[in-house]
Amino acid sequence: MSEKLYTVVEGGSITTPAGFVSGGLHCGLKKTDRNDLAAILCEVPATAAAVYTTNLFQAAPLKVTRESLGNGVLRAVVVNSGNANACTGAQGEADAYEMRAAAARHLGVSEDDVAVASTGVIGELLKMDCVRSGLASLPEKLDGGASGAEEFCQAILTTDLVKKECCVKVNVGGKEVLIAGAAKGSGMIHPNMATMLGFMTTDAAVGQEELLTLLRQATDTTFNMITVDGDTSTNDMLVAMASGLAGNETLGRQHPDWEAFAAAFTHVCRHLAQAIARDGEGANHLIEVVVSGAEDVAAARAIAKTVVGSSLVKSAVFGADANWGRIIAAVGRAGVPVSVERVDISLGEIEVLSQSRPVAFDEEKALAYLQGDTVLITVNLGDGDGSATAWGCDLTYDYVRINAAYRT
Amino acid sequence: MSEKLYTVVEGGSITTPAGFVSGGLHCGLKKTDRNDLAAILCEVPATAAAVYTTNLFQAAPLKVTRESLGNGVLRAVVVNSGNANACTGAQGEADAYEMRAAAARHLGVSEDDVAVASTGVIGELLKMDCVRSGLASLPEKLDGGASGAEEFCQAILTTDLVKKECCVKVNVGGKEVLIAGAAKGSGMIHPNMATMLGFMTTDAAVGQEELLTLLRQATDTTFNMITVDGDTSTNDMLVAMASGLAGNETLGRQHPDWEAFAAAFTHVCRHLAQAIARDGEGANHLIEVVVSGAEDVAAARAIAKTVVGSSLVKSAVFGADANWGRIIAAVGRAGVPVSVERVDISLGEIEVLSQSRPVAFDEEKALAYLQGDTVLITVNLGDGDGSATAWGCDLTYDYVRINAAYRT
Repeated sequence: MSEKLYTVVEGGSITTPAGFVSGGLHCGLKKTDRNDLAAILCEVPATAAAVYTTNLFQAAPLKVTRESLGNGVLRAVVVNSGNANACTGAQGEADAYEMRAAAARHLGVSEDDVAVASTGVIGELLKMDCVRSGLASLPEKLDGGASGAEEFCQAILTTDLVKKECCVKVNVGGKEVLIAGAAKGSGMIHPNMATMLGFMTTDAAVGQEELLTLLRQATDTTFNMITVDGDTSTNDMLVAMASGLAGNETLGRQHPDWEAFAAAFTHVCRHLAQAIARDGEGANHLIEVVVSGAEDVAAARAIAKTVVGSSLVKSAVFGADANWGRIIAAVGRAGVPVSVERVDISLGEIEVLSQSRPVAFDEEKALAYLQGDTVLITVNLGDGDGSATAWGCDLTYDYVRINAAYRT
Repeated sequence: MSEKLYTVVEGGSITTPAGFVSGGLHCGLKKTDRNDLAAILCEVPATAAAVYTTNLFQAAPLKVTRESLGNGVLRAVVVNSGNANACTGAQGEADAYEMRAAAARHLGVSEDDVAVASTGVIGELLKMDCVRSGLASLPEKLDGGASGAEEFCQAILTTDLVKKECCVKVNVGGKEVLIAGAAKGSGMIHPNMATMLGFMTTDAAVGQEELLTLLRQATDTTFNMITVDGDTSTNDMLVAMASGLAGNETLGRQHPDWEAFAAAFTHVCRHLAQAIARDGEGANHLIEVVVSGAEDVAAARAIAKTVVGSSLVKSAVFGADANWGRIIAAVGRAGVPVSVERVDISLGEIEVLSQSRPVAFDEEKALAYLQGDTVLITVNLGDGDGSATAWGCDLTYDYVRINAAYRT
């Protein structure tokens, strides 16, 4: 996908596409005074689609959101952090429904046009007093500028250190279309329990079915290709809303600019996914694993995710140790066929394995490379045309510190 | 399996069963002066069987050992630590063959009666000068007493802190039969690259096919149910040798004492597997996950291994945090069907989840329990009769420290 099909909008966020306002506030779910309740509101009914965690224990808000998405239209998304509202039984479900109803009432929209998302601790009931009073104050906090997006982005964070947002523009039949997204996620990311949440906004006019298909495809190569700790959350959710206010002819797969739109949309997903991996709990480095020459794409994905998820590979990157033995061991346990005599491995530009044989390399140079911000691991299998890229982060003392003390 | 079928022999080791001597020495493969070369020798041809890593990139010694096991008979096993002789190409293979030939010559046995095992760093050639001179001195180090076993157990360790050994006795048709084992493994354990190696000796007379079947069955419920870091080594190997010197009628599945023998054999495997998990790199706690009520045994195993392998569960145990949300999230991502409304979870005797609903529990009591040496996590799914037990360890600062600096 060529970057020329679209342009990144510096400083853009979820309120940049026409029709969207957002905001956030602190209602009391987090122990600190950081924001913990937020919403995005679209001024018109938005064509909408969502993808959800594959974890069998799906949190209550996912059930409510699926119901709202039944007709493919949303006006708003309301989200809280500090509590996942997962494994909370009938009361948790009632709370999620009440959260949706109250948000709808205060925002002046229909209940079934509101999606609900939650992230935080599992197994505790929501403090509904906080949620109720927060929702009453939320409408006045919404705006369509940078501060509205900032307050929203801050409100969805848990162990995240930085907000994640992205905006691109793409030409569709002569009209400028904007696509933006915001996400959170730092631990229980394989898309994970501190939870991955993502919110996409666009002012494109786009068919609902096509939007859902695109969302699924983009997720497969972006959010589903990251891992922080191999743990898949009960609350993962990615919601996209398209206002249609760009005034373009409605996009579908046959539209001449579909490819550009899809590339731009995928760029936003990839940017957010990388940002989540880079901000993985305790992470010092972004690790990118590019696998090529696999039997097929599924094999390439399995290998890329196994390598990027290996605790030993992650620890070696933390220690700036060019320990390719751990990389090839991960390739060999990925559960897919590999010709064991034909593997090439590089760290950045430094070749360390060629045709499964060690290559003498400059340890000092490798050390310097591995101390950089991003570590690229390239694996070529020489078996076929399958390729895939996965992202993760190193395993550090801080990961252990954060997760040894998360709940208390 | 009732413990009454057999008895643990306190202080027993691999040289306790009749017919076996062992020993070890330092030949120069490890940078410290710890032992790094060892052998077990049987005074008669032993009925033998082995199981190997499922990693596609199998190290050179595994090829050589498979060849030696072709006729189901071994006289000796020679093993080195400090170098895995994996991903070392044709030279590595030649080195493994030379190691076998030299060991056979010095021990006065046939080449194809010698198994070879290696553990340590991947991708570096063995220092054959060290191996050659070490093998020349090894025969005089072998003895059938406690010191021979001790030197052997020390020689196979890498990042392990303690040796792992076990011996039991069982009555077979009026004859006392001894079964013993020694193992190592601390990281790249899912049976893993610092590597799991196991060596079983018994003086039982037992059919070769039956021995192999028993070894596989016992491995499935013991060594294959442990994980330290989810990384499967290129070098894992478990070898069993039966001298037959106990004088019992040859054991087979129809023998009236087969059940007792199998239980005793499995006990040794389980003891060693638990000892490996407890000595996992950086570990403070042994974690035992018992899953019952699963649809079938395969489902129970998948769930038990997913829970015990979860970085978040492991970190929570390190932090003594009764964070059952991470346990149920792991259950839900294990890839097998689960009735999401029927799950019970306990930490030791403390019930924390009942029918998928949180149970109020005493946090102080939970904290005290989680600070103990062994943490038992019980998961009952209420779906069927499948049950399984898996073992692992907590994720600590020391795991990261050890693996950030392993190779250098």
